[in-house]
Amino acid sequence: MKTLIVHAHPEPRSLNSSLKDLAVSTLEAAGHEVRVSDLYAMNWKAAVDAEDYGLDATSRLKVAADSGRAFEHGTLAADVRAEQEKLLWADTVIFQFPLWWYSMPAILKGWVDRVFTYRFAYGVGEHSETKYGERYGEGTLAGKRALLSVTVGGPEAHYGPRGINGPIDDLLFPIQHGILYYPGIESLPPFVLYGTDRMTDDEFGDVAKAWKERLLTLESTEPIPFRRQNFGDYELPSLQLKEGLEPAGRTGFGLHVRG
Amino acid sequence: MKTLIVHAHPEPRSLNSSLKDLAVSTLEAAGHEVRVSDLYAMNWKAAVDAEDYGLDATSRLKVAADSGRAFEHGTLAADVRAEQEKLLWADTVIFQFPLWWYSMPAILKGWVDRVFTYRFAYGVGEHSETKYGERYGEGTLAGKRALLSVTVGGPEAHYGPRGINGPIDDLLFPIQHGILYYPGIESLPPFVLYGTDRMTDDEFGDVAKAWKERLLTLESTEPIPFRRQNFGDYELPSLQLKEGLEPAGRTGFGLHVRG
Repeated sequence: MKTLIVHAHPEPRSLNSSLKDLAVSTLEAAGHEVRVSDLYAMNWKAAVDAEDYGLDATSRLKVAADSGRAFEHGTLAADVRAEQEKLLWADTVIFQFPLWWYSMPAILKGWVDRVFTYRFAYGVGEHSETKYGERYGEGTLAGKRALLSVTVGGPEAHYGPRGINGPIDDLLFPIQHGILYYPGIESLPPFVLYGTDRMTDDEFGDVAKAWKERLLTLESTEPIPFRRQNFGDYELPSLQLKEGLEPAGRTGFGLHVRG
Repeated sequence: MKTLIVHAHPEPRSLNSSLKDLAVSTLEAAGHEVRVSDLYAMNWKAAVDAEDYGLDATSRLKVAADSGRAFEHGTLAADVRAEQEKLLWADTVIFQFPLWWYSMPAILKGWVDRVFTYRFAYGVGEHSETKYGERYGEGTLAGKRALLSVTVGGPEAHYGPRGINGPIDDLLFPIQHGILYYPGIESLPPFVLYGTDRMTDDEFGDVAKAWKERLLTLESTEPIPFRRQNFGDYELPSLQLKEGLEPAGRTGFGLHVRG
């Protein structure tokens, strides 16, 4: 595998950073190529603004259109271009982050906002009454796979089907489906550690064992079977799921998972 | 009302900035007090790091614990303290932002990550086997109300109950419930504009009329009836919703809305 690890934690001795380090050493020892985008160490700029688009930024900034022109002209900010190149290089992307306020840390959201530009990650393919782009299973990054490795402060029960915070699969859906599957990246089932607010250093041995097992079986792990947009499951042009395709009683985000 | 507007768009002549400006003028003309946190204009720092906690940052940074001590000692970074003070001052908070990759822009997520510290927004109240804090309807910001004003590039059908992107209520749940209701803020039904990628300046008149109507009826608008944590709806200590409380067939995030 050619693996890109995108890492988002400010403390090099944190659980998240230890998991990132373990991923690097485990994958390299198994003969895989690994590159790391350590966003805090890179002092990654989180906010999209006109600087990202150089001379292609219009005086009244249009984020989509300007980013698309800058992408096509090769004038995106150098740090953004470097991340796009890493994504094109990789066949596997691991995101290592703590769940902060039920989503990714701002620095990682800023990686998405800035790197996933128009014409690169969205605005790809024909947009008409009969086709709304190449997305959700197609797109620039089709064929690649991703894994979210997420630490969660609270207990697992709070994230279960009836848990007060909402099901973890639903909380991660906007990332796994909305961000990753949109430009074509398939998500493997996430590696989620719960109760990390109260985890002690002594417990890291068991965690490390489980994490290594996941890492060494990535190639044989089946991705989440999200429905592809352009292969008959959706009405056009509304892109509503056709009636009757889902198991009885399934609603919400789960509609967009097959079977 | 005392209204805080938290605004997250880089272009002062954008639709989002126009909506923010209209909110200021409309509310002030109606006799309300208004303060604005224009995050791009403030050059808001998005990434949580040790600088936020001053001398209370431990050499191995612990985000929750260190932020809680810095909050209690009054040593949080000045920009964070200023935002916490604005939140305590306000009775109403409006968030104006574009939906980028199915969530808030990174600069706004960074406002949440940095301002919603331990002991201020979480880690409030007793945590034991019989009580897991004062949250979801209780907490530091209980009694306040919020409104998300969100622009969405794509068409409304894609965000409907069967729409490919997922229902808008579910996409906003991690914000309205997970971020806002957690420290006690009730959310009014959001003001969502769809299809803004193709909206022309000519259409702004109708949009402005609808927005002004929402603004001038905020005080009489009922919030989304999320379930309160500590008033009998949840099992302890698992915080799973008790069986049978929900309407037949309701699942997922919707379980946590009453009725």
